[in-house]
Amino acid sequence: MNITVLGSGTIGQSWCALFLAAGHRVVAYDPNPNMQQQILDAIARAQSTLDALGYPGSGCSECLEFTTDAREAVKGSRFIQENAPEDLSLKHALYQEIETALDSDAVLLSSTSGLTLGELQDGLTNPSRLVIAHPFNPPHLIPLVEVLGNDLTRSGLVPEVLGFYESLGKVPIELKKSVPGHVANRLQAVLWQEVLHLAKEGVASLPDIDKAIANGPGLRWAVYGPNQLFSLAAGDQGLLGFIQHLGPSFENWWSSAGQVTFDDDTQRLIEQQYVDVNGLDTEEMKRRRDQIICQILSMKKAT
Amino acid sequence: MNITVLGSGTIGQSWCALFLAAGHRVVAYDPNPNMQQQILDAIARAQSTLDALGYPGSGCSECLEFTTDAREAVKGSRFIQENAPEDLSLKHALYQEIETALDSDAVLLSSTSGLTLGELQDGLTNPSRLVIAHPFNPPHLIPLVEVLGNDLTRSGLVPEVLGFYESLGKVPIELKKSVPGHVANRLQAVLWQEVLHLAKEGVASLPDIDKAIANGPGLRWAVYGPNQLFSLAAGDQGLLGFIQHLGPSFENWWSSAGQVTFDDDTQRLIEQQYVDVNGLDTEEMKRRRDQIICQILSMKKAT
Repeated sequence: MNITVLGSGTIGQSWCALFLAAGHRVVAYDPNPNMQQQILDAIARAQSTLDALGYPGSGCSECLEFTTDAREAVKGSRFIQENAPEDLSLKHALYQEIETALDSDAVLLSSTSGLTLGELQDGLTNPSRLVIAHPFNPPHLIPLVEVLGNDLTRSGLVPEVLGFYESLGKVPIELKKSVPGHVANRLQAVLWQEVLHLAKEGVASLPDIDKAIANGPGLRWAVYGPNQLFSLAAGDQGLLGFIQHLGPSFENWWSSAGQVTFDDDTQRLIEQQYVDVNGLDTEEMKRRRDQIICQILSMKKAT
Repeated sequence: MNITVLGSGTIGQSWCALFLAAGHRVVAYDPNPNMQQQILDAIARAQSTLDALGYPGSGCSECLEFTTDAREAVKGSRFIQENAPEDLSLKHALYQEIETALDSDAVLLSSTSGLTLGELQDGLTNPSRLVIAHPFNPPHLIPLVEVLGNDLTRSGLVPEVLGFYESLGKVPIELKKSVPGHVANRLQAVLWQEVLHLAKEGVASLPDIDKAIANGPGLRWAVYGPNQLFSLAAGDQGLLGFIQHLGPSFENWWSSAGQVTFDDDTQRLIEQQYVDVNGLDTEEMKRRRDQIICQILSMKKAT
């Protein structure tokens, strides 16, 4: 089928690579004609990952069409993944431009991380076809997609959208309520807050806390979520048994968890303790990160 | 060398398997003579994991000696890993029993997760040889060991202990200050608190949040810690550049993060939403968890 990608920054480029790899035709739109080459480069870079993940058509760049005309881009597409900059007026202008060119059954999927569904809906005459579908970067690699509709959303559309992403090999979850940051970014945030708090308190250095996570609980979080892990830790007692046993400890740790802001103290701490690249260059570390994640995903499928 | 393991519950058993696999002789103590067979069973169960991790001597059960005499157990050992139940009076009684039988250079390493170093030191005439060395379960698999000394600790001992665990292939980090729950458990706690908060608020179900973690940020946390990951996300801007750009969003998410307790509401939520085993049995899921973690560790070494 035809899928449209609106906005061809890093997120849009990664979606292009994924949709193509899953065997679809992609029409990519960007107001900047130079983005065509960048999309092609991104598709080439993503190819080995998508091959390793078992996608059939990765790198099929002849299935990609590029246009600087947003109305042309959406014609004939059922699913339209919108990745315009995180600026409400820009997104509204784009919605207004395309709305009358959309197919009658077209579904508009916004990758927004920071804007709310209600705000986005204000930019459409018919908001019932709009759903937030927030990926986790990079979308062609990380399975999670956070999907949110609300009362204005056409009945049955959210399950359809969940099915669409499942058909692409993603793991969508349904958000039932709008909340700043959706779920995954909020969870990253609370974890980081306590990391910064512990470093500020002098309990351990930022690099050592990074080591603790990647050599401790992080290894488990790649396999299961916390509820499942704590339930397993309690064996036949299950999660309620775990709480019976360890609930008071958790409540104690919660009561002494810290709150921080990015004030001068925090920024100084980061300057003093954090060496950004640990002797490797950024691109090399990103490559390693994505290569290991790709292997973890393959192993999880096989195990 | 000889290593003593005091207390042969699940943590002690796992330490035995690790120390043996690393090529050491182990003397295990437990007041209950039936634990000898349980240790042997645990060693057998850990063997394939330790083989896969590349340890030379896994399963060498003839290098294990078992005794119900704690004073006998510590004689001739430089390193003594103590895993008695998390009960201060029990640990103090054990310390009192063994202290006069310790070699002059013996180092006492407590696996405690919940007691403080100060509390433990009160049970020794000579507290300078005691260090907390808290593993992450199971110790033979998860690399992290949290190491804590304080002003009473013999100068130079903490670096020696860090070196000891490194020689065993572990990843020790130094805690510079005592705090309830050390580092890793506190980080697990804050993450779980926001998971429970989001589920209580009706944003997503507990199983869906588990899916979000294990298919989203959890995949990254197995590779690097949050500081490194956010730094990579900012490319050449580094971690301070990341804050420049996304700090306000994080501060917004922090301000709306929730606090929960294990009250009736939370317990009801868990009962309603959480199916403990997802159709698989607990042992099978634990086996899968550990097998995947073992493969992740091998990959990280190779990549």
